[in-house]
Amino acid sequence: MTADFAKRRKAVRRELRRRKLDCLVVTGAANWYYLTGFSGDSGALLVSEAGTTLLTDGRFAVEAREETQEIRIEKQQGPLYKAVGEFLKQAKVGATGYDPATLTVAGWKMLRRAAGAKWRGVAAGGIVEHLRTTKDAGELATMRKAAVLAGQVLESVLKLIRPGVRESEIAAEIDYQMRKQGASGPSFETIVASGPRAALPHARPTGKRLRKNELVVLDLGAILGHYCSDMTRTVHIGRASERVRGWYRAVQEAQEAGVAAVTAGVSCGDVDAAARGVLKKHGLETCFVHSTGHGLGLEVHEEPRVARDQATRLEPGNVITIEPGVYVEGVGGIRIEDDVAVRSDGREVLTRVKRDLIEI
Amino acid sequence: MTADFAKRRKAVRRELRRRKLDCLVVTGAANWYYLTGFSGDSGALLVSEAGTTLLTDGRFAVEAREETQEIRIEKQQGPLYKAVGEFLKQAKVGATGYDPATLTVAGWKMLRRAAGAKWRGVAAGGIVEHLRTTKDAGELATMRKAAVLAGQVLESVLKLIRPGVRESEIAAEIDYQMRKQGASGPSFETIVASGPRAALPHARPTGKRLRKNELVVLDLGAILGHYCSDMTRTVHIGRASERVRGWYRAVQEAQEAGVAAVTAGVSCGDVDAAARGVLKKHGLETCFVHSTGHGLGLEVHEEPRVARDQATRLEPGNVITIEPGVYVEGVGGIRIEDDVAVRSDGREVLTRVKRDLIEI
Repeated sequence: MTADFAKRRKAVRRELRRRKLDCLVVTGAANWYYLTGFSGDSGALLVSEAGTTLLTDGRFAVEAREETQEIRIEKQQGPLYKAVGEFLKQAKVGATGYDPATLTVAGWKMLRRAAGAKWRGVAAGGIVEHLRTTKDAGELATMRKAAVLAGQVLESVLKLIRPGVRESEIAAEIDYQMRKQGASGPSFETIVASGPRAALPHARPTGKRLRKNELVVLDLGAILGHYCSDMTRTVHIGRASERVRGWYRAVQEAQEAGVAAVTAGVSCGDVDAAARGVLKKHGLETCFVHSTGHGLGLEVHEEPRVARDQATRLEPGNVITIEPGVYVEGVGGIRIEDDVAVRSDGREVLTRVKRDLIEI
Repeated sequence: MTADFAKRRKAVRRELRRRKLDCLVVTGAANWYYLTGFSGDSGALLVSEAGTTLLTDGRFAVEAREETQEIRIEKQQGPLYKAVGEFLKQAKVGATGYDPATLTVAGWKMLRRAAGAKWRGVAAGGIVEHLRTTKDAGELATMRKAAVLAGQVLESVLKLIRPGVRESEIAAEIDYQMRKQGASGPSFETIVASGPRAALPHARPTGKRLRKNELVVLDLGAILGHYCSDMTRTVHIGRASERVRGWYRAVQEAQEAGVAAVTAGVSCGDVDAAARGVLKKHGLETCFVHSTGHGLGLEVHEEPRVARDQATRLEPGNVITIEPGVYVEGVGGIRIEDDVAVRSDGREVLTRVKRDLIEI
């Protein structure tokens, strides 16, 4: 299914009219891919009523022409935001939206200087990011495949997990299998964290060897057709103690409660509370040191945030992760994570791997 | 060899005194790793005469404590730059340097608001980046290993190159072999670009199958012990035509001229000109669409830029890439890239793989 980039740019223009802006400076590779199909990682996209212009440097000129349609390509001369400012000045563009959360102070100053005294910049962050939160049927189909792929890879590496194997070897195998199965790569640095290292929610894989009676957290995601998946399972090497089983049951129950809370109209804060509440009930609230989840799509961390007190309400087409965890310093950690698409009547869990404790 | 983080922070303080600054807000994971050893990827580091404070969130609290010494760790509450501002206000810090090239407009506004009316922000970019350009003996030893590792991986995948194999399969194998040999991962998205796709300097590997009589550009780098390597070789499948051989000879000659120009005291612009001049002599100047090289270290693209008219003079301990190329749209491309350490009496080429045309 080919993405309807023109339709997406039309939605941006609608928003520009609503905000009385003449133009939007689109920053961020995921945003300009979403609006044009351009896959290069340097440039700036200018969307206005008059048309869409992509400023990029010589390295990406050919891709820009091949991958986009109905877009004017301008080869940038000199620093990017100087070129953007000069373009806006020449095109006599008035009120121009930019994203203060991605534009740097230096970029902003350069842009303002080059655009001239008549130009007016208006903070207008998140316009494209907001459009991106609602996935269309084509995007959902791709994300389903990306989630299934990650699950297959996870299942295929379980057989490697045994005492003596290094975290880094398992991580290398995960990334290799992803690519073999068609992913363009991992959507973030694959996590394989064992024993006390499993207590670090964002541990990098090390040369540490797995040992008997350790928990192993496997957190991985694939990029397939530009879209990300993200999943976590936790394995125990050997028979788990009653204490570990208790923690696992609590996380599993919290994850189920989080997933069950997902439906259109519910606030992200309420989804977070559903998972967090279960851990609280088990006296494990302080062991859960991050938020329950995040949006997922062209980037592995997108809007909406599924965190405490987030008022944003879920809408059909959102895709989020649900990933509560319990971390005990010096001992280990447990996390279970799935990708969930929001539907008007509930949810579709995209990840297809069992969630029960795996003892190896 | 353990890095002397305290010595590096001392160098930052020396620079702060010179600039009459009380404190520096250090942004960017490579910068705070360089100064503290903290490997997490979210936070902000505050270096002042009174001491060094790392603000980070709950996910990285354990790493922060384990990986650093003599650093105060503060768990950030709420948005990062709000926390930074509040910390500066409470510590009654005066003139504070920040990097306008990395701090976003939104971050800057949040910081300023939270720091209060008495606080004064001063644009002071590149202080840590500049220190990072001079590698010490320990860093050079690591970078040598990272360069050798990349070379070994490249040589090991040459046997896979034959008609019918997909670009993505070779890229997957490259990344896998890197990890197998101890790298924590590739230092950028590995490039395997064949046939007309080799004309795209930053091509992503696709499902395209290699064909007879095509050029294949292999551009890869490994991260080893936090440091990056970056190298490129170009292979021809089958016997190359006289035209392709002519291009190859020109690129090889340009690359040799670039490498030969590297020595302490020479400007980066002159190194660029040495390589570019050779391609000009061969009438291929317009086919060389990027700069000759870039600094390399904790990040794959660092200071200094080895580009047209860059006045920065090379110093002993700099590590740069030399990577001229020729790109012919619709036909293919050739690039040869090595990592070169600058010495007072010349250079050390870290990459150890032959540069002659490989016909497979």
